[in-house]
Amino acid sequence: MLTLYYTPVTCALASHITLIEAGAEYELERISFKREEQKNPEYLKINPKARVPALVTEEGVLTETPAILVYIAQKFPAKNLALMNEPFHFAEVQAFNSFLCSSLHIAHAHRMRGYRWVDASDTHSIEAMKKKVPEAVSACYELIEKSFFKGPFVMGERYTVCDPYLFTLAQWAEGDGVDISRFPRVREFRERMGNRPSVQRALDEETRKAAAE
Amino acid sequence: MLTLYYTPVTCALASHITLIEAGAEYELERISFKREEQKNPEYLKINPKARVPALVTEEGVLTETPAILVYIAQKFPAKNLALMNEPFHFAEVQAFNSFLCSSLHIAHAHRMRGYRWVDASDTHSIEAMKKKVPEAVSACYELIEKSFFKGPFVMGERYTVCDPYLFTLAQWAEGDGVDISRFPRVREFRERMGNRPSVQRALDEETRKAAAE
Repeated sequence: MLTLYYTPVTCALASHITLIEAGAEYELERISFKREEQKNPEYLKINPKARVPALVTEEGVLTETPAILVYIAQKFPAKNLALMNEPFHFAEVQAFNSFLCSSLHIAHAHRMRGYRWVDASDTHSIEAMKKKVPEAVSACYELIEKSFFKGPFVMGERYTVCDPYLFTLAQWAEGDGVDISRFPRVREFRERMGNRPSVQRALDEETRKAAAE
Repeated sequence: MLTLYYTPVTCALASHITLIEAGAEYELERISFKREEQKNPEYLKINPKARVPALVTEEGVLTETPAILVYIAQKFPAKNLALMNEPFHFAEVQAFNSFLCSSLHIAHAHRMRGYRWVDASDTHSIEAMKKKVPEAVSACYELIEKSFFKGPFVMGERYTVCDPYLFTLAQWAEGDGVDISRFPRVREFRERMGNRPSVQRALDEETRKAAAE
């Protein structure tokens, strides 16, 4: 059994969707950022980074979305979710996800987590970071739209672990001040992914679990 | 044949070392940041991100260090550089490298590439970012030292693609204002890695090539 520690409206959604796509049995454990549960000593034993997602497996804990996504793909190989038997295509999957975590997600994070990179009390710099977010995030979508998104899925005809990850981050585009109409392929993809049963189930489970608490 | 586009004293060194460790045949193409060659139209056709590294393979171009490292490991399986046949351990390798690219390298990048996240003309914010670098980078080393570095190599007894990557980023610790004596395991590892023939050869090739131009 796998247990996913997640917080709604975070990148943990990508791992959640992938567990469903893979047909994995899993349990969900919600970590409330509002109650700062990610800093609870109990949770820090699971993930000393004080972040989500964390996936508890029978062999130990895994963190970092790109690693978790490929782990699920490898443990449930029937769906070929990471194209792992094709080294070049697998590397393209990995490169795309690496760009999402180290460029797109980071550009986004400067909107609400600027305190990671300047002192929290420095309101001028915190605001300056926020102001740059639309441009920095849009530049990432520009690269995705023009250079890396093959269509209809990220990697072309085949659905891979790039898809739930891009879908998840793309939820935040408008909040980041991105004019999504500039990126019609990403917009169409996002809409189509939103109708996918695995995505609807994941969103539903996160909402229901949140509402029950 | 593989061709690695690199710039000295960047994270491209990790891919360079790994090509040597794998026993791959490769060519090096140096991109001068000083001459802004990463923005040349010719290079942008190879890597529209205007970054290094880029690895040109017979099937196409790959970018992003974590992807390139695992690609090399998979193409040259004899050395088992990514523990790919052990899903949990492979995922640990991936999680470590993902942390390096999206947390440690990003914390470091706020020292000299702050213009990615605030307007370049905003000297107050650019300086505020620089000021936070020692703390933000040290926090990453704290996690590595206490929670993720198994020793003697990152993943324990086995040398993996995590090792050249951590070694590469650890070159910058003092420049980032990190008191490396706080992290004795990382410091000892860095010294030991520096004596490794593959590392010495990679550093030598990068220096010689730079001197020849």
